[in-house]
Amino acid sequence: MRILQAIMKKFAVIVAGGSGQRMNSAVPKQFMLLQGKPLVWHAINAFLSAYEDLQVILVLPAVHLQAAEKIRRSFLAEETRIFPVAGGESRFQSVKNGLALVTDPSIVFVHDGVRCLVTPDLITRCYTQALEKGSAIPAVRATDSIRIITADSHRVADRNDVRIIQTPQTFQSQLLLPAFDREYDESFTDEATVVEAAGHRVWLIEGEHENLKITRPADLLIAETILQERSSLQ
Amino acid sequence: MRILQAIMKKFAVIVAGGSGQRMNSAVPKQFMLLQGKPLVWHAINAFLSAYEDLQVILVLPAVHLQAAEKIRRSFLAEETRIFPVAGGESRFQSVKNGLALVTDPSIVFVHDGVRCLVTPDLITRCYTQALEKGSAIPAVRATDSIRIITADSHRVADRNDVRIIQTPQTFQSQLLLPAFDREYDESFTDEATVVEAAGHRVWLIEGEHENLKITRPADLLIAETILQERSSLQ
Repeated sequence: MRILQAIMKKFAVIVAGGSGQRMNSAVPKQFMLLQGKPLVWHAINAFLSAYEDLQVILVLPAVHLQAAEKIRRSFLAEETRIFPVAGGESRFQSVKNGLALVTDPSIVFVHDGVRCLVTPDLITRCYTQALEKGSAIPAVRATDSIRIITADSHRVADRNDVRIIQTPQTFQSQLLLPAFDREYDESFTDEATVVEAAGHRVWLIEGEHENLKITRPADLLIAETILQERSSLQ
Repeated sequence: MRILQAIMKKFAVIVAGGSGQRMNSAVPKQFMLLQGKPLVWHAINAFLSAYEDLQVILVLPAVHLQAAEKIRRSFLAEETRIFPVAGGESRFQSVKNGLALVTDPSIVFVHDGVRCLVTPDLITRCYTQALEKGSAIPAVRATDSIRIITADSHRVADRNDVRIIQTPQTFQSQLLLPAFDREYDESFTDEATVVEAAGHRVWLIEGEHENLKITRPADLLIAETILQERSSLQ
C-alpha cells in the first residue's frame, strides 16, 4: 500500500473560471486578494503542500492565462508543478480540458478555485479514500433546516438525509477519464454527476465546514478571518 | 393598512436554549460575547430596533434566568419590553412556553437566539408578508450542490429546488397559537412544520445569507467580522 501510494501519480485540476458577477467586482473572484495573494493561490498552495509529487492543472479562461503565469511564477521552485490550461464554455468543458493533461493511472482531484480554505488534511483523506473505493466526494451536514420546492408548494426534508457537497471531488483516473469522454449534458452539475452518468457509484467523505466556496463579498471577509485565525494558531 | 399595522401587536419569541456542546465551551453559545455583548443581546437588539411597539419574549433554560435578567437590564429604558421565560425540554416546548405570553391578534416572530446577525430589514419584510399571507419563513438558495441520502446510496438534488431555512419564522397569532395547542411530535423540527401539521400552508420569503446560526467556533469569528464590517459602513 505504501509503495502504491508512492508510485501513484496525483493531479489536481483546479478550476478558476468564474466571472465575479456576484462579487460586484471588476476583478474575477479567483484573483481577489486574501492575505495579499489571489484566492486561487491559496487553493494551489494547499494541494502543493499536501503532496510533493502532486501536479496542479490550473484551468482558467484563456483571457486570464497571463495572470495564471504570474501566479505560477510566484511559487518559485514549485512553479514546474503547475500547468495553466485554457478552459471552455462550461464547467464540464473546462474540467475536460484540464483532464487532457492527466495520465493513467493516477488519482485526480477536481477542485473549485474559489474554495481557497481547503486543507491538506481534507486532500489526503480524499486521496486515501479514492485509492480504496474509487472516489471521494466531500460532504457536510446542513446546520439549518432544508426545504424542497415542489410543483405547487414545498416540503421539509429530513435534515439527517441532506448533505452539502464540496470539492475536491476525487477519483481514480480510470473512472474519471472515460466518464468525461462524452458530450456535455445539463445534468452534469459537478464531477460526481458525470461519473454517475457513466454508471459508477460515487462515495461521500466527511468534508470541512470551513471549506467555503467564496461567492459573495461577505465570504471574502469570512475567509480572511479564518486564515488569520489559522496563522495565529501556527 | 397603515392603521392595521399600527394597532397590530408584535411579539418576538427568541429561543436561547442551546447547550454549547459544539462550541467546546463551558459558556452556552447564546451568552458568548460578540463585540462585548452576549450573542442573544444582538438578536434582541435587532427586534427592539425594528419596531417600537414590539415585545421580546426571551425563552431560555430556567438555570439561566438570572443571566437573562442581566441582559434585560442592560437595555435600560427598553428593559420593560423584554420578558424572560423558562424554556422546556424541547424546542417545541420552549416556544410553547413563550407563546403563553402572546395575545391575539398579533404577529409573532419565532427566532433562534444564536442568529445574532438578523437585520431589522428582514424582520420588517417578514412582518409585512405575515400580515398579508399569514406567514413568512425566511429561506435562501444553496450555494453548493446538495445530495439526499437514500436507503442504499445518495442522489443529487436539483439545486434550484433546495431552500435553506432560517428564522425569524413569522406568523399571525391566529395560526400559530392553535397550532401549538397540541402534544409534541418528532416531526416538529421548527415552527413551520408545526403550523403545517395543523393543516395550514406556510409561505417562504427571501432570507439573508448573513443570517447565520452560530454553531461552531469559526461561526463566532465570522459573525464578529460581519458585525465589524457593518459598523464600519455606518
